[in-house]
This record gives sequence, structure tokens and C-alpha cells, in this order.
Amino acid sequence: MENKRILVLGGNGFIGAHLVEALAEAGARLRVLDRPGSLPPAPVPRVEYRYGNFSDIATVAESLVDMELVIHLISTTVPGTANRDPIADIEGNLVGSVRLLQQMCDAGVPKLLFLSSGGTVYGNTKAIPIPEDHARNPLSSYGIVKVAIENYIGMYATLFGLEALVLRVSNPYGPRQSHLGVQGVIPTFFHRILSGDKIKIWGDGASLRDYLYISDLISFIVGAINADLGGVFNVGSGQGVSAKEILSLVADISGAAPAVEYLPARGFDVKDVVLDIAKAQQAFGWSPQVSLRSGCETYWRWLKGAGAPAEPV
Amino acid sequence: MENKRILVLGGNGFIGAHLVEALAEAGARLRVLDRPGSLPPAPVPRVEYRYGNFSDIATVAESLVDMELVIHLISTTVPGTANRDPIADIEGNLVGSVRLLQQMCDAGVPKLLFLSSGGTVYGNTKAIPIPEDHARNPLSSYGIVKVAIENYIGMYATLFGLEALVLRVSNPYGPRQSHLGVQGVIPTFFHRILSGDKIKIWGDGASLRDYLYISDLISFIVGAINADLGGVFNVGSGQGVSAKEILSLVADISGAAPAVEYLPARGFDVKDVVLDIAKAQQAFGWSPQVSLRSGCETYWRWLKGAGAPAEPV
Repeated sequence: MENKRILVLGGNGFIGAHLVEALAEAGARLRVLDRPGSLPPAPVPRVEYRYGNFSDIATVAESLVDMELVIHLISTTVPGTANRDPIADIEGNLVGSVRLLQQMCDAGVPKLLFLSSGGTVYGNTKAIPIPEDHARNPLSSYGIVKVAIENYIGMYATLFGLEALVLRVSNPYGPRQSHLGVQGVIPTFFHRILSGDKIKIWGDGASLRDYLYISDLISFIVGAINADLGGVFNVGSGQGVSAKEILSLVADISGAAPAVEYLPARGFDVKDVVLDIAKAQQAFGWSPQVSLRSGCETYWRWLKGAGAPAEPV
Repeated sequence: MENKRILVLGGNGFIGAHLVEALAEAGARLRVLDRPGSLPPAPVPRVEYRYGNFSDIATVAESLVDMELVIHLISTTVPGTANRDPIADIEGNLVGSVRLLQQMCDAGVPKLLFLSSGGTVYGNTKAIPIPEDHARNPLSSYGIVKVAIENYIGMYATLFGLEALVLRVSNPYGPRQSHLGVQGVIPTFFHRILSGDKIKIWGDGASLRDYLYISDLISFIVGAINADLGGVFNVGSGQGVSAKEILSLVADISGAAPAVEYLPARGFDVKDVVLDIAKAQQAFGWSPQVSLRSGCETYWRWLKGAGAPAEPV
């Protein structure tokens, strides 16, 4: 890792900023490209911050100069909203990512780490936990585009020798995660308790999801780069938790009794998602360290404390 | 079928023109939309021919007026060339198809029949023949885009109630098929024999493919519309044939001894593709009627005869 030249696309976002801090600590030479108007929670020393749009070819080309690894965290959409404008999703995320692959080949950047979505690429599955070789039948535009990007990465690996690591991440959560109601159930529930708003649950609240604390995700990514992993890995907790269980946990931790509104299930929501993480666990001795209760407690302390006002959007 | 109002997108192409003839014969009221410069082999009476680009929103919107069924046969790329410009493939085929889905919902056109690709959506498989529920791991841009279109069709079916029939067709062949070397092994081999050119084979010529005579494909489509089928169906012969076997067959039928050049295998070519057609066979009593030898003999007679000069490009 020492002095490894890494470009982090989307390095000021929730996952990106945590990752940049960890990679800088590990000795990497980092460049961040994120959209104009984004900001790191606190600029990390010796990191080169650049600002520009992912759709701008020259901006991306300049960012790729001299890089050994690209970590691609950019998404211009989120799972709950991509369906409203699938063509914008295709143009922004799929075309941008394929252009990135072309530009990496042109610039001779050998390796890509892409964050895919363990929660949306598989769709409704026959059984849980879901192994990496399970069929991918995404139900939402977000998942459809992630699958297409994964497939193009595979094509560029075969045709042009691109080295690639694809991580199908479950629902990461932790301090500094946005509370806009689109990024995750845990921050949304805690924020609504703090603001006194009703908590909304789509469907009966029994569907299982796989929540991974941010530091466990970051430790996997750092370890995977150190181990020079390639291929496709599920990265999650391997544990299935329902929205009702999260509700009970956040009520318990916060000491509040939130009002809950149940809304009709959405067609693009997957029934259950619990990732089989055996492959990730066997790769280099990683396993998730932070329990759901402990992670939620940390998030709640952060939210109530000094962190909240400075939270990145 | 009698008086059913059907729009055939790409109705002047190889498959499209055969289909328009059969549907007109069956009593459908047909509209064809194809690109400017395309021509039907012979205009079919009572068919409304329109010309315009698939990327033109107004053209597509006008074509949808009063239709009950859209048959979407348009592809702006072919398997062998889509990889050269994947972004054009995405823009032309994926964006165009998603826009079509939106426009169909807006216009209240209830049903879509989409021709997908049995030869490219599955990628390299664990076993042959390949059933419809096998994982889709396409290796080429052509296949990646077909999978993404299939997934968006599923999403529009779930979210907006679109009725859809997706046919994963193997390698169709028959009279009037182009000989440009990109549409299929059988016409290409026969044309090269006729012109005295060398026959090129990528790889060792042992990979299996599934060839379906055009009239068998058309009879499935007409029968599926009559039966109001929905869902996903493999449509092929269910038989695996190697390029070497095709070579020997075309040599035998033509009486020629063609020169053959073996070229390195291409990374985006799938090892073997033989479709499991049990579901199609059980749907309404269809099964392929034309043997490979008989279909090839018909093609050769057509190619040598009056058909050749008038062949549509």
C-alpha cells in the first residue's frame, strides 16, 4: 500500500471519505475526484482533491494520469429514486462507467475496484444467504445498471486485460451517513426519532436486509488492496435483520417510542437480502467486527453529538 | 390475430420481413417502422410502412398510436461489432428500448414482444442445453445490452403492468439473410463458397451453436401471439452443431471444397450455446420442423437463384 497511487472517484461521499482516511493512514498516495460542491468532512493531509463531473471526459482523463488503481464509488442515483428516470440512470452511471473503462485502458491504468450493490443485483432469490454465483435478476434501475457495469468490467477484463475487483456491498451504515431517507434505514430511523417525525416502513417490515458497519467495509477494502484481490466478492455481515428489528433496536438505544406508518410495499423492493460472505472471509482472514447494536449505538452518539451539524450531505 | 393492430419495429430486416408476411397472412393489421433507406423485399399489401429513426421520439410516438402489440426487432448493432463501440450500443439499443417502454406506457399500448439473444445473454454456461432460468453472464456488449433491456422490461412489467413476451432466439438462418459476415455462419459460408473466398473460422471450430430455420422461428412467434403467451422463452432447435459440421454440410450441399482459414478465438465468443427449448415446446404444441440439412439446401437454392440479387442488405 505504501505510496500506491490511487484515484478515488466519489472520495467525498459517505463511504469515500472513510476510505480516503484509512488509505491515507496506510500510506497510499491519493487523489480524489468528486463533484463540484462536494467537500470532505475534513481535508486529509497529502490527498490531492479535484473537482469535476464524472461525465466530463477531460476531467476524468486528467484524474487518471499516473494512477495504479481506480476506486470507483460514484453513483449519480440511489436505489429508491433511479426508477423515476432510468434513462438518466443509464446515461449518468452506465455510460460514464463504460467510458471510464475505455479511458483506463487508453491511459494504461491497470486496476479497478468497483463498488456494486449486494442489495439490488440479485433481485428476489431462491434462498438466503446469497452466494456470488447466484443468478442476477435485478428489479430496479439501480440494480440493472450495476449488473450492466459489472458485465462491462468483465468484458474489459477479458478483451483488454483490465484487472478488476467487484465488491457487492450490502447496506453499509455509520457516522456521517446522510439522513435524506434514501441512503439507509438506520440513519433514517435515528434521524426521524431525533426530529420527532413518523418512521415510514414500506411493506410489512419483515423483509430481511444485511447491514454492515462502515469500519468493517473499510477494513475489507484496505485488506483487499493489500492482498491484491481480484474477482467478485459479497461484502456484508452475513446476518439478516428486518426493519421491525431495526425499529425495536433504535427505540431501545434512543429511549424513544417512535410513531410508525406502514406504507404499501414497492414493486422494486427485493424480498430478502442476506449475503453469503464465506468467500470474503476466506480471502485474507477478514470478518465483520462490529455488532449491529454496537454500530447503532456509535451512530446514535455521533448523531446527537458534535458530528451531526457537520454531517456531509 | 384477425385485425390485431401490431407495430413491427425493424419490420424490413431479415426476421422482420418474414414475420410481416406471416402476420399479414394471418389477418393482422400491421404497421412497420424501419430506418430510412430500408426496404421490404416486396411490400406486403395493406401493411403501413413508415420510415424514421428509433432514436427519434416523435417518430416512435406516432408509430405507437392505436397499437395493441409492439414487436421490437430493432438492433443498431450485431454481436461481432458491438464491442468496438459499447457506448453507441448502449445509446442506440438500451436507451432507445427503455424510451420505447416509457412511450408504450404513456400511449397505453399494453403488450411488447422483444427479441432477445439466446446466443449471447447466457455467456459461458455450466451445462447444455441451457434452460431459461440459467444465470445470465454475457461476455459481449451485444449480450450485456440485451440482458439490461430484458431487465428493464421486467421492471416495467412489475411497476406499470406492461405485458411482455421475451424470446431468447438462437441463430436463425434462411433465405434473404445478409451475407456480410456478421449475421450468421450459414449464409457467410455459402456466400464465400459462391464467391470463391476463403472461409474464416475463429477458434478450433468445435464450439456448438444452435441454428433455427427462419420458418420455425416465425411459426413460434405467430403461435405465441395467438396463444397470448407472456414471460421468457428460449426459441431454438435445441440441437448443438459445430462450425466444422456446418463447413462439412455446406461443402456437401454445394459440391465445393472451400479453403478454410483458422483464426485465434475471440474473447467475447461463448464456448457452447445449445438452448433448452422444452418450455417453448410445451407452450402450445410448437416444435422445429425443418432439419439443418433441409434448411441449408433451401438457403443454397435461394442464394444461387433469383433471390440472390434482390437480397436485402
